[in-house]
Amino acid sequence: MTLLNPLVPIIMGSKSDLHYGQVIANSLNQFGISSEIRIASAHKVPSILLQILTDYETDPRPKVYITVAGRSNALSGIVDAQVTCPVIACPPLSDTFNGADIYSSLRMPGGVAPLVILDPEGAALAAAKIFALDNPEVNAAVRAFQKAGVDRLLQDDAELNSKSKPSAPSQPPPQDSSVNNFDL
Amino acid sequence: MTLLNPLVPIIMGSKSDLHYGQVIANSLNQFGISSEIRIASAHKVPSILLQILTDYETDPRPKVYITVAGRSNALSGIVDAQVTCPVIACPPLSDTFNGADIYSSLRMPGGVAPLVILDPEGAALAAAKIFALDNPEVNAAVRAFQKAGVDRLLQDDAELNSKSKPSAPSQPPPQDSSVNNFDL
Amino acid sequence: MTLLNPLVPIIMGSKSDLHYGQVIANSLNQFGISSEIRIASAHKVPSILLQILTDYETDPRPKVYITVAGRSNALSGIVDAQVTCPVIACPPLSDTFNGADIYSSLRMPGGVAPLVILDPEGAALAAAKIFALDNPEVNAAVRAFQKAGVDRLLQDDAELNSKSKPSAPSQPPPQDSSVNNFDL
Amino acid sequence: MTLLNPLVPIIMGSKSDLHYGQVIANSLNQFGISSEIRIASAHKVPSILLQILTDYETDPRPKVYITVAGRSNALSGIVDAQVTCPVIACPPLSDTFNGADIYSSLRMPGGVAPLVILDPEGAALAAAKIFALDNPEVNAAVRAFQKAGVDRLLQDDAELNSKSKPSAPSQPPPQDSSVNNFDL
Amino acid sequence: MTLLNPLVPIIMGSKSDLHYGQVIANSLNQFGISSEIRIASAHKVPSILLQILTDYETDPRPKVYITVAGRSNALSGIVDAQVTCPVIACPPLSDTFNGADIYSSLRMPGGVAPLVILDPEGAALAAAKIFALDNPEVNAAVRAFQKAGVDRLLQDDAELNSKSKPSAPSQPPPQDSSVNNFDL
Amino acid sequence: MTLLNPLVPIIMGSKSDLHYGQVIANSLNQFGISSEIRIASAHKVPSILLQILTDYETDPRPKVYITVAGRSNALSGIVDAQVTCPVIACPPLSDTFNGADIYSSLRMPGGVAPLVILDPEGAALAAAKIFALDNPEVNAAVRAFQKAGVDRLLQDDAELNSKSKPSAPSQPPPQDSSVNNFDL
Amino acid sequence: MTLLNPLVPIIMGSKSDLHYGQVIANSLNQFGISSEIRIASAHKVPSILLQILTDYETDPRPKVYITVAGRSNALSGIVDAQVTCPVIACPPLSDTFNGADIYSSLRMPGGVAPLVILDPEGAALAAAKIFALDNPEVNAAVRAFQKAGVDRLLQDDAELNSKSKPSAPSQPPPQDSSVNNFDL
Amino acid sequence: MTLLNPLVPIIMGSKSDLHYGQVIANSLNQFGISSEIRIASAHKVPSILLQILTDYETDPRPKVYITVAGRSNALSGIVDAQVTCPVIACPPLSDTFNGADIYSSLRMPGGVAPLVILDPEGAALAAAKIFALDNPEVNAAVRAFQKAGVDRLLQDDAELNSKSKPSAPSQPPPQDSSVNNFDL
Repeated sequence: MTLLNPLVPIIMGSKSDLHYGQVIANSLNQFGISSEIRIASAHKVPSILLQILTDYETDPRPKVYITVAGRSNALSGIVDAQVTCPVIACPPLSDTFNGADIYSSLRMPGGVAPLVILDPEGAALAAAKIFALDNPEVNAAVRAFQKAGVDRLLQDDAELNSKSKPSAPSQPPPQDSSVNNFDL
Repeated sequence: MTLLNPLVPIIMGSKSDLHYGQVIANSLNQFGISSEIRIASAHKVPSILLQILTDYETDPRPKVYITVAGRSNALSGIVDAQVTCPVIACPPLSDTFNGADIYSSLRMPGGVAPLVILDPEGAALAAAKIFALDNPEVNAAVRAFQKAGVDRLLQDDAELNSKSKPSAPSQPPPQDSSVNNFDL
Repeated sequence: MTLLNPLVPIIMGSKSDLHYGQVIANSLNQFGISSEIRIASAHKVPSILLQILTDYETDPRPKVYITVAGRSNALSGIVDAQVTCPVIACPPLSDTFNGADIYSSLRMPGGVAPLVILDPEGAALAAAKIFALDNPEVNAAVRAFQKAGVDRLLQDDAELNSKSKPSAPSQPPPQDSSVNNFDL
Repeated sequence: MTLLNPLVPIIMGSKSDLHYGQVIANSLNQFGISSEIRIASAHKVPSILLQILTDYETDPRPKVYITVAGRSNALSGIVDAQVTCPVIACPPLSDTFNGADIYSSLRMPGGVAPLVILDPEGAALAAAKIFALDNPEVNAAVRAFQKAGVDRLLQDDAELNSKSKPSAPSQPPPQDSSVNNFDL
Repeated sequence: MTLLNPLVPIIMGSKSDLHYGQVIANSLNQFGISSEIRIASAHKVPSILLQILTDYETDPRPKVYITVAGRSNALSGIVDAQVTCPVIACPPLSDTFNGADIYSSLRMPGGVAPLVILDPEGAALAAAKIFALDNPEVNAAVRAFQKAGVDRLLQDDAELNSKSKPSAPSQPPPQDSSVNNFDL
Repeated sequence: MTLLNPLVPIIMGSKSDLHYGQVIANSLNQFGISSEIRIASAHKVPSILLQILTDYETDPRPKVYITVAGRSNALSGIVDAQVTCPVIACPPLSDTFNGADIYSSLRMPGGVAPLVILDPEGAALAAAKIFALDNPEVNAAVRAFQKAGVDRLLQDDAELNSKSKPSAPSQPPPQDSSVNNFDL
Repeated sequence: MTLLNPLVPIIMGSKSDLHYGQVIANSLNQFGISSEIRIASAHKVPSILLQILTDYETDPRPKVYITVAGRSNALSGIVDAQVTCPVIACPPLSDTFNGADIYSSLRMPGGVAPLVILDPEGAALAAAKIFALDNPEVNAAVRAFQKAGVDRLLQDDAELNSKSKPSAPSQPPPQDSSVNNFDL
Repeated sequence: MTLLNPLVPIIMGSKSDLHYGQVIANSLNQFGISSEIRIASAHKVPSILLQILTDYETDPRPKVYITVAGRSNALSGIVDAQVTCPVIACPPLSDTFNGADIYSSLRMPGGVAPLVILDPEGAALAAAKIFALDNPEVNAAVRAFQKAGVDRLLQDDAELNSKSKPSAPSQPPPQDSSVNNFDL
């Protein structure tokens, strides 16, 4: 049983994407998950990056790493191959070359397996789902987050249809319904 | 404390990619992780897919879903939004339109967060890393897998250089080394 | 003989593209066709979406569904596979990744056949052409719409050439014309 | 009430894609729909194409045109703008330039609205769905086709799981289910 | 010997790109070449387009057609296949789908051969080069245009180097030059 | 009046695409046009290329250059900027990077205007159309070539419909035709 | 031993990218390297370009050419094939066609080998690294530049973590560390 | 003055591309340049890679690193940022995603400047050109290599034209030449 609070080290390749990391940290906070933002370029300071990972690996808290590196993303794969914890790659997109940087996050060599997601809030949600496997508080927060999304959709549909139409769009189904409901 | 063995439901959109799912299942097996392959198209049998998810959610084992759907991938996002467990999308690639199907796995709406990985063995490794957070056996298996990869690289480099060169390529560094080792 | 007025359920994956749906609804209105905009994410509320479809299928009016879902378009294929009515997918475009989201609308699995069109006014026109097969009023409206487009082009050409040139550009053809008119 | 049998003129830009047209014709035949394959390049014989359309428009049968033109697809838009019947563009794909020909089918000017689908069998299915609005026989055939697809999926899943697992994968849900079934 | 002045019919698919056609007309004017801008959508008014071509073909002046059609370019190929005169396709670019519309100008069927150029001034220059084969005045204008471009480059280089450097960058070559001048 | 026979210098960047040049030469031959294939890389032997162009420019025959260079196409633009004759760029395609080499033929600087066409037979046809402006023999050959293409299409359509259908598909139009023939 | 100061001729295809060349020149200056910006279009003034290269080749200083040409880059390959000095291609990017111009810099024919880099400051750094092989002053400047980059990263990480967290994120490792440090 | 022979460490991310490295080594050998192939994944064994670089940096020979890493190329940037020697990235291409891996070699962060070239023989040539700045033997070898390429082109052109044509294609220029030779 995990008694320790989970931790997400958010490792960034440069300070220039700091806002991106802060969105992730804020989203994690909404799931009750602590995070720390670190700046460590895999290209320029690989040995410092390795030292940071060594330090984190001695930390007994359950961890999911979220790596944030734009352009050619070396960071995510290097982090993933050094640790047994899961690694989520959340690369900031650039319009240059039509966002082709994404392939540097996806095209990993065999045995290197960072998991890719585009949306920084989604990265936080995915990390929360991982911790939720063993952490009831986080599980409840994920469930509440998902339910809020569902409620918002229901409300949007209801508002739209109450405003524009006097009568309900969904009549009671007739007796001899011809619904094409093959798979129920 | 998780006493239960982990389970990976591998949900596939059609039987045509069965080989893909089997590679994932075999890789999971090497990490000591059970899996079940299910065929359930999100497009054609959504209510059956929902029923399958409902059934799995009642299963108390810790679960990571791996979704396998080529072409337009509706499956991964729908599964992810229905469960609190993490979902890994491992879409089979097609050459048609240059693999552009990948964007149907990456471009999720807000609040839907499947994690994308291309390599089916990588999907199994990533799932194992998630379970390894709380499962020492899986953790050891991940560690052994990663170490084997390192050893293979060391051996490849050693063989290559022992064959072609009589003397070692790595001399002892001189006293007054000019190594550009900024970050150590 | 269809005595009932046609109906277009415009199903949208989220409220954020509401303007898009409203353009479609307004265009349909110009052809004398009723529509209802519904918000129902295939990812987040699939069972509610199925219920909405079930309700609509009991409605005896002839229907063409128009589905509007940006990013990864799961909605269009799911709707199409649940109903025997035709489904027109009119996905809002995003510049991200150069509009590659379109492939999630085009790359359907076998047996799933939503029809894709980019322009929301075009989606309305196409729906009108479908209803026009059996509805003389809609047929007349389509014909008038097409004729107006032709007239506008003729007027544009006439204005342009009356302004800039004193004499008519189209002389009467000579007796011994060498026109390369192979296929008349 | 439409007493006449529906007709699909399959208009092809050249004979080289004849196989493609024949797949469409065969699929239409399975839905009980007649078709005629015509060869008429919009580029090379536009006036003959116009004459063919004029002839078909005098045919009182309900019609959906399916246009088949590879490379730069001029045919689909020209046909669509000349008729009030719906037009389905089903362009054969080429690997050259990564299938970029598809954009010549999608990027129509305003007021021109052919509906695009990639799969030739899907084109037939979509045409059938259009006729099914007013034709009970075709409607039944569409419904049967969709049901057969569902049945095949159920059988695939059942076979896969009966072979590999002695006990059923879908246990009866426990009393106190924690299913994340927000939207039911 | 051609005694007649050349003419460029600039055929545009819609009035919306009029500015584009005007740039071409102005550039042609600088080479002393007359032009006429016509609006005739190949999609919407193909028979009128054919009539316009028939009219122009009776005009004895030497002609190069320049076709201007954005989105899916049906115009250029249809014009080219109807006339023995050369046709230059100068499609206005759109950012949508990363300019993929260009393929509808390039991917012609066999036997249809419009010549593609992106720059509207370049289209005028290319037309001028065609007329220059037989027209000394136009030939002289092309030559003067090209020479002006060369002079501008020489002046740019001279200004840049006179400003920034006191001494000439190009010293007289030494006697024993080691220039790698293989092909002179 | 041009008394001289036309000439097409086919300039190729390397011998490796010789087959491509030969297809062009053979096609030109069918229009009665002489050609000469020259090998001269713009990258490696620019001064020799310039000398070749100088030699050709002294040749009084009317000329259209066709340039054939794969990969990064420097040849077409350099040739075009050195001569007043028209230049047709017919670059061999490569699958590498999805045919992106085409952009090196299209993206010319201002004042450089080679005309691009993909099909080598099309390059020959386009050159023939240019010469046809002033050469009745070539004009007749172009016209015959185009007519043969039309005839082939008519025959294809006739054969297809005579085989498969006992009665003619094109009935005489009824008196009260409802043809949507807006623009005739 | 090279006693002469290095020189970088920056050859630009047109004056329109002058700012780009100036960024390169300024960066080179920071490494103590002289440069000269020349304007010489490979397309329009190839013989002048060849003369400029001939002049530079007689200059005994060690040289690295940096070529700057947007759109279709003919310049870099032509320069590279004329000289034995290394050539760095630093093409200005354009958004048009999604930056596909880059392929005209990358897709060189065999035996032509300009080295491509996107960032103009990077081009200067790469040139400096080449000169640094034999020039201790430049070597020291490169080393200082790299060290400054490392220091900036360390400072960014330190500032970020000192601000947001009272205690140090890197605890002293425990005795029985479980770090996954396979390759140290 | 450099008395030491140059060395090219060819660093490869995995053994799977060994053939690629061997082509580079063989080409370097033709320029009289020694090389050593090392296997060291930046992702999996970064600390070993750093040690290898440390060892090489103590080697006093002038060095150019050539890095060979397919898929997401982390290797080239990491090597470049650790050494003051120039680094040439020569990534093996994959058809997957249309060769988009190239962007992981091109899109480096600021201050990281590996130079990219596609052709492995070109990588060797470019390295030779760098060493040629200070090494007369290598300079002579580069010059001979380039001259051989020129000679081959001249021979190809001569053979082609001697075979097919009895008389020489390049007549002596007439007295009053109208050559458009603006820039000579």
